Amino acid sequence: MQHQISVITLGITDMPRSRRFYVEGFGWQPVFENEEIIFYQMNGLVLGTWMKPALEADMRQPGLNAPGAFALAHNVPGQADVAPVMEHLIAAGGRLLRAADAPPHGGFRGYVADPDGHAWEIAWNPAWSISADGHVTFAL
Amino acid sequence: MQHQISVITLGITDMPRSRRFYVEGFGWQPVFENEEIIFYQMNGLVLGTWMKPALEADMRQPGLNAPGAFALAHNVPGQADVAPVMEHLIAAGGRLLRAADAPPHGGFRGYVADPDGHAWEIAWNPAWSISADGHVTFAL
Repeated sequence: MQHQISVITLGITDMPRSRRFYVEGFGWQPVFENEEIIFYQMNGLVLGTWMKPALEADMRQPGLNAPGAFALAHNVPGQADVAPVMEHLIAAGGRLLRAADAPPHGGFRGYVADPDGHAWEIAWNPAWSISADGHVTFAL
Repeated sequence: MQHQISVITLGITDMPRSRRFYVEGFGWQPVFENEEIIFYQMNGLVLGTWMKPALEADMRQPGLNAPGAFALAHNVPGQADVAPVMEHLIAAGGRLLRAADAPPHGGFRGYVADPDGHAWEIAWNPAWSISADGHVTFAL
């Protein structure tokens, strides 16, 4: 099968609060929104923020937990970009999980939770290439 | 900021069990693996499966829950592809969450959890385009 993830859907509980984090914090523009879901066109996939009861009903999994055992990452062009992006996300309703520092495997990163507790790593990884349209390629 | 997600990292608890689901179930090939993490190069981003204690330590968030309040999706070319892909994932250690049917908003989809409970929607969505290299574009 294609190495392909089409959508990441995050369960949210307060649409304006979540929208502020993604639109003002990350500066991302919705490609669709109504009262229960917002879609953002990302780098080869779509990010959705969907009211949690609707997501749970669609998945047939009531009572899902946040934060879950996962993290999303957004990479920035330079080490000096990490902390300012994290501060910007916190100003838009995010919550600091881990201040930025250098992990043992190299680079520089910190973690901020979105208003629903979903974790975002903001990372600088000099080994990975990022194209002008945001496509990220793994490398060591 | 770029509309860019660089990595999705899933916390896992049994590496061989998780590897079987992704490598045999989805047929995806690792670009890197050691005893605690596997990376898969996806459509413009990277999927990581990382032993949960290490992810929790990196995030400074002990005791993360699975399943979390999120779902990942993989889109298939036709409606008739949905059920066979789900059966293949279940044969590789997945667990059925919702049998495939037609949602109110169109298309066809079902849900399978990976061995750690992370939900995958297997979807056919005729409105969304998918390029030969797996880049997915939102449309109504």
